[in-house]
Amino acid sequence: MKSDEVRPLFEAAKSGDNKALAKLLSLSERMGNGIFKELPELADTAEPVFRIGITGPPGAGKSTLISALIKEFRERKKRIAILAIDPSSPFTKGAILGDRIRYSDHFLDKDVFIRSLGTRGSLGGLSASAYLMLRILDWMQFDLVMIETVGVGQTELEIVNVADLVTVVLVPESGDSIQAMKAGLTEIADLFVVNKADRPGADALMREIEANEKLGNNPAPVLKTTATKSEGVIELADEILKNSDQKLQQKRNQKNRLQQEAMSLLRADYEAEALNKLAKIEDADSFKKLFT
Amino acid sequence: MKSDEVRPLFEAAKSGDNKALAKLLSLSERMGNGIFKELPELADTAEPVFRIGITGPPGAGKSTLISALIKEFRERKKRIAILAIDPSSPFTKGAILGDRIRYSDHFLDKDVFIRSLGTRGSLGGLSASAYLMLRILDWMQFDLVMIETVGVGQTELEIVNVADLVTVVLVPESGDSIQAMKAGLTEIADLFVVNKADRPGADALMREIEANEKLGNNPAPVLKTTATKSEGVIELADEILKNSDQKLQQKRNQKNRLQQEAMSLLRADYEAEALNKLAKIEDADSFKKLFT
Repeated sequence: MKSDEVRPLFEAAKSGDNKALAKLLSLSERMGNGIFKELPELADTAEPVFRIGITGPPGAGKSTLISALIKEFRERKKRIAILAIDPSSPFTKGAILGDRIRYSDHFLDKDVFIRSLGTRGSLGGLSASAYLMLRILDWMQFDLVMIETVGVGQTELEIVNVADLVTVVLVPESGDSIQAMKAGLTEIADLFVVNKADRPGADALMREIEANEKLGNNPAPVLKTTATKSEGVIELADEILKNSDQKLQQKRNQKNRLQQEAMSLLRADYEAEALNKLAKIEDADSFKKLFT
Repeated sequence: MKSDEVRPLFEAAKSGDNKALAKLLSLSERMGNGIFKELPELADTAEPVFRIGITGPPGAGKSTLISALIKEFRERKKRIAILAIDPSSPFTKGAILGDRIRYSDHFLDKDVFIRSLGTRGSLGGLSASAYLMLRILDWMQFDLVMIETVGVGQTELEIVNVADLVTVVLVPESGDSIQAMKAGLTEIADLFVVNKADRPGADALMREIEANEKLGNNPAPVLKTTATKSEGVIELADEILKNSDQKLQQKRNQKNRLQQEAMSLLRADYEAEALNKLAKIEDADSFKKLFT
């Protein structure tokens, strides 16, 4: 891929060509920060798209919930992109076979674009590729971007850095809320979903979260869904879209978010470069050549 | 400090001026890899000095043992440098007051040089400063270099990467050997010391270590000391010095060690540079300037 092919691909993707978009995202993975030179507008955020983060412990039913949300948003004529950064996600597994999930209900729908990303940053959290892909998706003609990550520990909380609204999905299972608290999930939530709400313990979990939220300054709403039966999904979609423009404006281009992103992007450059240099060290002579 | 002052300081230090050496080491901390440009011979290992690593869990009596070893090595007319990288070490605490420990028995002895280093690498393990200082110490007129680190977890095991002989110090306390195994200490040991051997359980601990060592290919010797009474120290010094030239030749300039060191040195450069760049990010415009 020559660099003069990047711009035409970008333009084709912007006009709605999902195949060109898939190629462009793959290309951004290989080019890293080099892509800013070809497409300087990626460093702007002229056309931000509302990004919905969906996170939670493994097994919370995030992918099923996302599938249900896709259906609901399509009813509302929204064009949607999904970036799945959860290695346990069936979206991600699908990516091994091809780039879009084979068994998805949305395979033939050109207004649903699904991309998965198996890699994490070297220190956990979001990889540079994730940041670059989200910047690219901002420039496409989507109405919404959904980001799926698995929240399992402090380093996995970087979703707060890219999503304009963080939805934390929990299920009524013993200790789930305690695990979520330990993993720091309750601190980043703008919205809680108690999924699998037809199971016993759902109301108790809701009350527990609500009680915990009341202690803070800005309590996040708690909703119930049963994603497998699409129950509660309309209400969830309503809640997500409520004041979405305002939420987006509040969060984009915050200094700490830009710094966090820059750190991840710079680190990826450094790691590629360092690996390259280390590979050349065979003995004391080649070590000396590197440093003098 | 101008760069043309580095060489004279290096020459003065080589001729035995400990004050010049202390200044040079501090300078190397600030200069980082830049010092290789001024002193290219640091990237060589023309004059390696035998490096004795002393590690073990906190409270094993490493510093007391090192003090006893210093005395013993001085009896044998050895000129010695000590680099204490253990933040819990009294050598390190002394460094807060000045550069050499004030209360040391060896304060007035110009053939004992003590330097402490409070910092670790950003991911644990040895900092770039530690690697640079050890390279500098190689060029001084020492007969032996002792390196004190605290072995508390996998990331702290990098001492194996700089020491020509790794001595692991344990004490007869319940679970000490199990902790050592968990922390990976038993795998890096060339030599075990059961210190505080006048306490009950010392023989049991020795037998436990010996039994564990017998399972491997290259069982490490196990010695007993009571450092506070200088018991067992002569035998320990003998064991340390046995075949020291051969041990040194075996370990220096191994490819994996050089690569590990280079990684630490390169990372320090990158981190300084990245911090500098991140500090300039205030908004989307300054972000854009950085990447385009």
